[in-house]
Amino acid sequence: MQLGKVVGTVVSTKKDEKLEGLRMLIVRNMNGQAELLDSYVVAIDSVGAGVGEVVLWAGGSSARLTRQTEGKPVDSIIMAIVDQVEIEGSEKYRK
Amino acid sequence: MQLGKVVGTVVSTKKDEKLEGLRMLIVRNMNGQAELLDSYVVAIDSVGAGVGEVVLWAGGSSARLTRQTEGKPVDSIIMAIVDQVEIEGSEKYRK
Amino acid sequence: MQLGKVVGTVVSTKKDEKLEGLRMLIVRNMNGQAELLDSYVVAIDSVGAGVGEVVLWAGGSSARLTRQTEGKPVDSIIMAIVDQVEIEGSEKYRK
Amino acid sequence: MQLGKVVGTVVSTKKDEKLEGLRMLIVRNMNGQAELLDSYVVAIDSVGAGVGEVVLWAGGSSARLTRQTEGKPVDSIIMAIVDQVEIEGSEKYRK
Amino acid sequence: MQLGKVVGTVVSTKKDEKLEGLRMLIVRNMNGQAELLDSYVVAIDSVGAGVGEVVLWAGGSSARLTRQTEGKPVDSIIMAIVDQVEIEGSEKYRK
Repeated sequence: MQLGKVVGTVVSTKKDEKLEGLRMLIVRNMNGQAELLDSYVVAIDSVGAGVGEVVLWAGGSSARLTRQTEGKPVDSIIMAIVDQVEIEGSEKYRK
Repeated sequence: MQLGKVVGTVVSTKKDEKLEGLRMLIVRNMNGQAELLDSYVVAIDSVGAGVGEVVLWAGGSSARLTRQTEGKPVDSIIMAIVDQVEIEGSEKYRK
Repeated sequence: MQLGKVVGTVVSTKKDEKLEGLRMLIVRNMNGQAELLDSYVVAIDSVGAGVGEVVLWAGGSSARLTRQTEGKPVDSIIMAIVDQVEIEGSEKYRK
Repeated sequence: MQLGKVVGTVVSTKKDEKLEGLRMLIVRNMNGQAELLDSYVVAIDSVGAGVGEVVLWAGGSSARLTRQTEGKPVDSIIMAIVDQVEIEGSEKYRK
Repeated sequence: MQLGKVVGTVVSTKKDEKLEGLRMLIVRNMNGQAELLDSYVVAIDSVGAGVGEVVLWAGGSSARLTRQTEGKPVDSIIMAIVDQVEIEGSEKYRK
C-alpha cells in the first residue's frame, strides 16, 4: 500500500457499466514520511474519503476485494483514511 | 488507474486468436493534473474511445474484467472516457 | 501492453519443467512513438515472432492466458506481431 | 520480494472492515546490499515485526496468502524477519 | 521475466510457516544485454541456482506456479538457469 493525499476528482459519463456509482478520486502519492511526491493515481473510494484527506490505497487485484469493487475493472482502491503516521517515535502526520 | 490521452493505434494481423476484434490504442499517460507525461501504454478500448480523447485506463488482471476482454491475454484496458478533471476546486480538464 | 522489438534469445537447459518447449525472447521496449527505450523484458513467444520484429507484449497474470502458457510460471508474453503504429495520423512504423 | 527496514506505523480508524486488527507498518526499502533506499511501502505485518527490524516483504496477490490477509484488500505483506544478508561471501547485515 | 545474477542469500528464522524450506536468493538484475543493473530482487529458488549464476526470474502471481511455491506468499521466483544470451547474432553471455 502507499500513502497519498486526495487532491481531486474525475468525472466520466461514458464508461464501463460496472463503474456506475463508484467515486473516482485523484490521489497524490506521499512517501513513508508523509511528504508529497510527484506521482498520482486515480483510485476508487471505498471509505468516504474527501479532498484534502490523507489515505492509504492498494493496487492490483487487491483493489477488487471491497464490497464496492468486487468483479469490477478497477486496479486502485482507497481502503483507509489515515489518522496518524509515526516514524521512529516522531509524529509525521496527524489528522 | 491512470489518466491518459489516446494518441494513436496499433494494427496487427498475426496475433493470439483471442485478440481478434479488439481495438488496440496507444495512450500517452497524464499525471493527476491532466498534464502529458513521457510514458505510454497500449490498451484495449472497451468504451469507444477515439484519438484525442482523455481516458482512464486500468492495468493487470483488472484489464480482463470487461465483456470484451474476459479471459484474454491483455493487461491494459480503457474503461472510461473522462469528461472532467478537477484538482482542489480548479478545473484542469473539460471535454 | 507495451511495444517492443525482439532483439535476442535466451537459452536454458536447467529450468522448471513447465517451461519445456517455450521460446524465450529478449524484447527491447519501445515508447508509443515506436522509438527504442533502454529497458528490456524476456517474454515467451506465442505468435512465432523473430529477431527484428516489432511486437506487443503483456505482463502479469495475463501472460498465462494463451494456449502455450496456461498454468506456467511466466509473467511476460508476446501475443501480437505489429504491422503498423500510427500516431495522430502519422505512420511511425510499418512492417 | 524486497528487503526493507520497518521505520514506522500508520493508524487508521475509518477503514474497510476487513482491515480491522491488522498492523500497518511503514517499510523503507533496501537494495540487495541491505543499504537503505529512498522509497517506502506500507505493508501488513504477519510475523510480529517491530520498528528497526529488517524484513522481507511481498506485493500483489501474494500479499493475501497469509492467514491474516486472506481475501482482504491489501497488496503488501511482511512475511519474514531477516536474520542475515550475505553477498558473495561477505555479511552485509546480521540481526 | 528479467535476467539477473544470483549474488547472495537471505536467512530468516521468524517467517510465515509456508516459507519453511524455501531458499531465498538475492538477484541483481541485468538488462537484455546481460549487463548488471543497480536493482535487486529477493527470489525463491526453484531450480537449484547458486551464487554467481545468471538466471531468469518471474514476478507476481506467476511466482506461485511452481511445485515449491504453490499457494505461498512469495512474489518472485527463479525458474531457469541461463546457458546463453544472444543479441542480434552476437553472444552476450555463455555459462
